[in-house]
Amino acid sequence: MTYPAKVEGIAITDKKDWLHPKKASYDLKTAGDRDVDIKVIACGVCGSDVHCAAGRHLPLFEDCVVGHEIIGEVVKVGPKCTAGVKVGDRVGVGAQSLSCLECESCIAGNEQYCKKNTVYTIASIYPDGSKAQGGFGSHVRTHEYFVHPIPKELDTVNAAPLLCGGITAFSPLLRGQVGPGKTVGIVGIGGIGHIAILFAKAMGAKVIAISRSASKKEDCLKLGADEYIASAEGDDWKQKFAGSIDFMLLCNSSFSKSNFDSLFSLIKLGGEVCSIGIPDMSYRLSISPLSLLGIKFGFSALGSRNEFQKMFELVKKNNIKLWVETLPIGEKGLHEAFERVENGDVKYRCTMVDYDKEFGN
Amino acid sequence: MTYPAKVEGIAITDKKDWLHPKKASYDLKTAGDRDVDIKVIACGVCGSDVHCAAGRHLPLFEDCVVGHEIIGEVVKVGPKCTAGVKVGDRVGVGAQSLSCLECESCIAGNEQYCKKNTVYTIASIYPDGSKAQGGFGSHVRTHEYFVHPIPKELDTVNAAPLLCGGITAFSPLLRGQVGPGKTVGIVGIGGIGHIAILFAKAMGAKVIAISRSASKKEDCLKLGADEYIASAEGDDWKQKFAGSIDFMLLCNSSFSKSNFDSLFSLIKLGGEVCSIGIPDMSYRLSISPLSLLGIKFGFSALGSRNEFQKMFELVKKNNIKLWVETLPIGEKGLHEAFERVENGDVKYRCTMVDYDKEFGN
Repeated sequence: MTYPAKVEGIAITDKKDWLHPKKASYDLKTAGDRDVDIKVIACGVCGSDVHCAAGRHLPLFEDCVVGHEIIGEVVKVGPKCTAGVKVGDRVGVGAQSLSCLECESCIAGNEQYCKKNTVYTIASIYPDGSKAQGGFGSHVRTHEYFVHPIPKELDTVNAAPLLCGGITAFSPLLRGQVGPGKTVGIVGIGGIGHIAILFAKAMGAKVIAISRSASKKEDCLKLGADEYIASAEGDDWKQKFAGSIDFMLLCNSSFSKSNFDSLFSLIKLGGEVCSIGIPDMSYRLSISPLSLLGIKFGFSALGSRNEFQKMFELVKKNNIKLWVETLPIGEKGLHEAFERVENGDVKYRCTMVDYDKEFGN
Repeated sequence: MTYPAKVEGIAITDKKDWLHPKKASYDLKTAGDRDVDIKVIACGVCGSDVHCAAGRHLPLFEDCVVGHEIIGEVVKVGPKCTAGVKVGDRVGVGAQSLSCLECESCIAGNEQYCKKNTVYTIASIYPDGSKAQGGFGSHVRTHEYFVHPIPKELDTVNAAPLLCGGITAFSPLLRGQVGPGKTVGIVGIGGIGHIAILFAKAMGAKVIAISRSASKKEDCLKLGADEYIASAEGDDWKQKFAGSIDFMLLCNSSFSKSNFDSLFSLIKLGGEVCSIGIPDMSYRLSISPLSLLGIKFGFSALGSRNEFQKMFELVKKNNIKLWVETLPIGEKGLHEAFERVENGDVKYRCTMVDYDKEFGN
């Protein structure tokens, strides 16, 4: 059976062998009046897909299909949809698929921080008990508010990683008022870090890329960074860049090797550090109050509908090209993607393609 | 011998018996061209005087005289002073007595964060090796930049605690843009907390006072708080005040009993928490990243010359009356002050007076 009766995806069928996902058949969530059905055409692979597949985040239900940087074509629009999406439109879905849309956060356009009714795109359960299944399958069904129109100028392969990696970098940069005259530090040069460099530069800031070793220097300069710090190689940078950064974005996925005290000494008085990585739910930061003296530190997650549109405009206007590899969706392709993302062996983002070959037209 | 040859003060002559300071004679710092000599007329007792006297902060030199909420009369002005202070003026000196006055922080009016040449008013050593001695003595000698003119409308006893406790509360409230339409949470109702309630209210904010028990509720409402939370008595407040505070000032001196996760859940998205207490230099915060999601957290210390003047204006304009007890300076009086501050038995601030009786005219 195929859509709409059933859909097919590449699922974690054996939790212990999550690195080898298998093709499986499953139901989409119960259709809601404001839901949009989307035939997936590409989907980025995010570090949190791998964490999730490995069972490190939320508990994994049976035959879980991850993938939350989804680009697809609208094939059905719910009867009460009002956002203007039409059958045939190219749209995107990110990590969030529902919020209450009524609370103070939601009304203020901060639905990513809704504490009442957030459902994530993967490994989440809807209030009615149906499963949220992600973009490594033939179709997804998502509330229209979390279905983002993709401007025609954006290339699909390049656009997919924007849906989670991109917005995760963009929202804090925007809220941190990054722009001309500001110096931005990007710590951790992986999938999100490389996007953050591209964005901060396009927003007009001076960009300092910060990684532990010198191995990513060349890439960072090509991406547009003005300066590069290899933080585990020598101490000269501590003096040279002391108090020079207005806004620092921590994109590192692990904090265990971070020397916050040294990194934070680079922040200008009154400046800000924002982290987008939450290692795991039980993790607790150990931090010296002195390192936070006169500066501000916080965490950011995802972005809002409004911020998605602003991000797409930035990418369009500046013709921003992410560094994206592609792999064909399927058991073999997704295995390779999981393995390479797990090993940090992607430069710097990977999009799964060839959905028609795997799932048919 | 008396000033200017020597001065007398009530000093920590026996580090082990710091609760019983004794009268001692000592030298003021070497006179600098921009130094002002001040005959002390009153001095507040701050929690950090007691920590310092007990040897919990900086290493204590022999016959250390603490006290850094100093009000006095100018008796001598250095030959190169330009700030306009004259003999006979009533002035104040706070916790900081020197900075480099040349670095980016100093030039931007953030001299309290100068990392190059900060000398504190107590238990600090000047670059030339002379000792910084504080306000529980007959005289102090301080660089004019850290000598603050006191408006004539301000009462001496009321003004003394402003020099450290007051400015410590005022600077973050000002930088946090506290004012009409904002809701401010004041956590920890002691010497500084009670001033923070008075200030935040005078600045036009709605004020929520937060203390562990209900014992300070009546006082807080008298001070002007609009709401009171007894955070260790029940859980209703977590729901009632969730996401309602724009700016939270942590005035508690110990973090060991603080439940940051619960307190921070009261912060509005995009809001800010600022702590003014650094328990000790080796202390490390243990904090959940999730509790910092969508908010900002940092530390503040003291205030700038410019902020001192703004604070005095606020106090003058709103006729703000701190709750201040007085005790006579001298071995007996200071012993009692140390003991009561150590035990948290002051409501809510204490100013040492009667300097003429102890040290003569």
